Amino acid sequence: MRMNEGVEWAVHSCLNLAWLGEDRAVPAARLAAFYELPAAYLNKQLQALTRAGILTSVPGPKGGFRLARPIAKITLMDVVAAIDGEEEAFRCTEIRFRGGSGGGRTPANPKPCTVASGFRKAEMAWRRELAARTLADITSEVERTNPGAPDRVRRWFDDNR
Amino acid sequence: MRMNEGVEWAVHSCLNLAWLGEDRAVPAARLAAFYELPAAYLNKQLQALTRAGILTSVPGPKGGFRLARPIAKITLMDVVAAIDGEEEAFRCTEIRFRGGSGGGRTPANPKPCTVASGFRKAEMAWRRELAARTLADITSEVERTNPGAPDRVRRWFDDNR
Repeated sequence: MRMNEGVEWAVHSCLNLAWLGEDRAVPAARLAAFYELPAAYLNKQLQALTRAGILTSVPGPKGGFRLARPIAKITLMDVVAAIDGEEEAFRCTEIRFRGGSGGGRTPANPKPCTVASGFRKAEMAWRRELAARTLADITSEVERTNPGAPDRVRRWFDDNR
Repeated sequence: MRMNEGVEWAVHSCLNLAWLGEDRAVPAARLAAFYELPAAYLNKQLQALTRAGILTSVPGPKGGFRLARPIAKITLMDVVAAIDGEEEAFRCTEIRFRGGSGGGRTPANPKPCTVASGFRKAEMAWRRELAARTLADITSEVERTNPGAPDRVRRWFDDNR
């Protein structure tokens, strides 16, 4: 089970936009070039972040993408939901009502499947952790462990407009 | 992000084997017919469970699959690992060292990526929950909420040998 690889790209691109300042719009091609990513594919992820209200798309010659809200209000869960979707990893297809067990009759108001409930509980734990981690938590930790990172980002984007 | 659908089939098939008694081997075709599943595909999942030490494959005309250990010693995590693999859902490709940021140089002993650490923490919470849920927990709960289920299973497999 693999998450869309665009999740990694999207999170790192949002961090870069945060370090560049919330008013600065950056074209998808520049955000992609910073990590040598395929621009068209990253653009698709940035559009998805825009639809989810995480980024704003600024039109025009000085346009591009910028953060739509403070990174303290953006969680890893928000980015995963925008890029990878909100469906649950375990999908219960109610096989318990097929064939020999249920005779093909699905009851009108079935009790929740005990198997599915076990998977749901685990998935909720995963989502709770992702929702508890904001991008601001991440920038704070990066700034502590790798204090030169924000300046390197700003310098590169200033030099490669 | 979706888990392999075989996980649902595998868990339910293990529960059925538990209700049929630990000494009874059941052919893949019978386990599949109970839920009207494609037998060849279920057989593939049962083989994976066998490689993982969850089932034992019994050869011969009275052969089939049976549980290799008590269901109190089989967790949802064991089944997921056997069927869906053990790789992490979020794969860090270290884009932080590519292009503008790292100049393409990956340090010899890089600090863990803060982004990847956030995802890993969430994934560990998910795995902990799955590892805390045994198939014996599930049969106990099913026997409480749906007390007729084990007998229906035994009757069907007795009638459809």
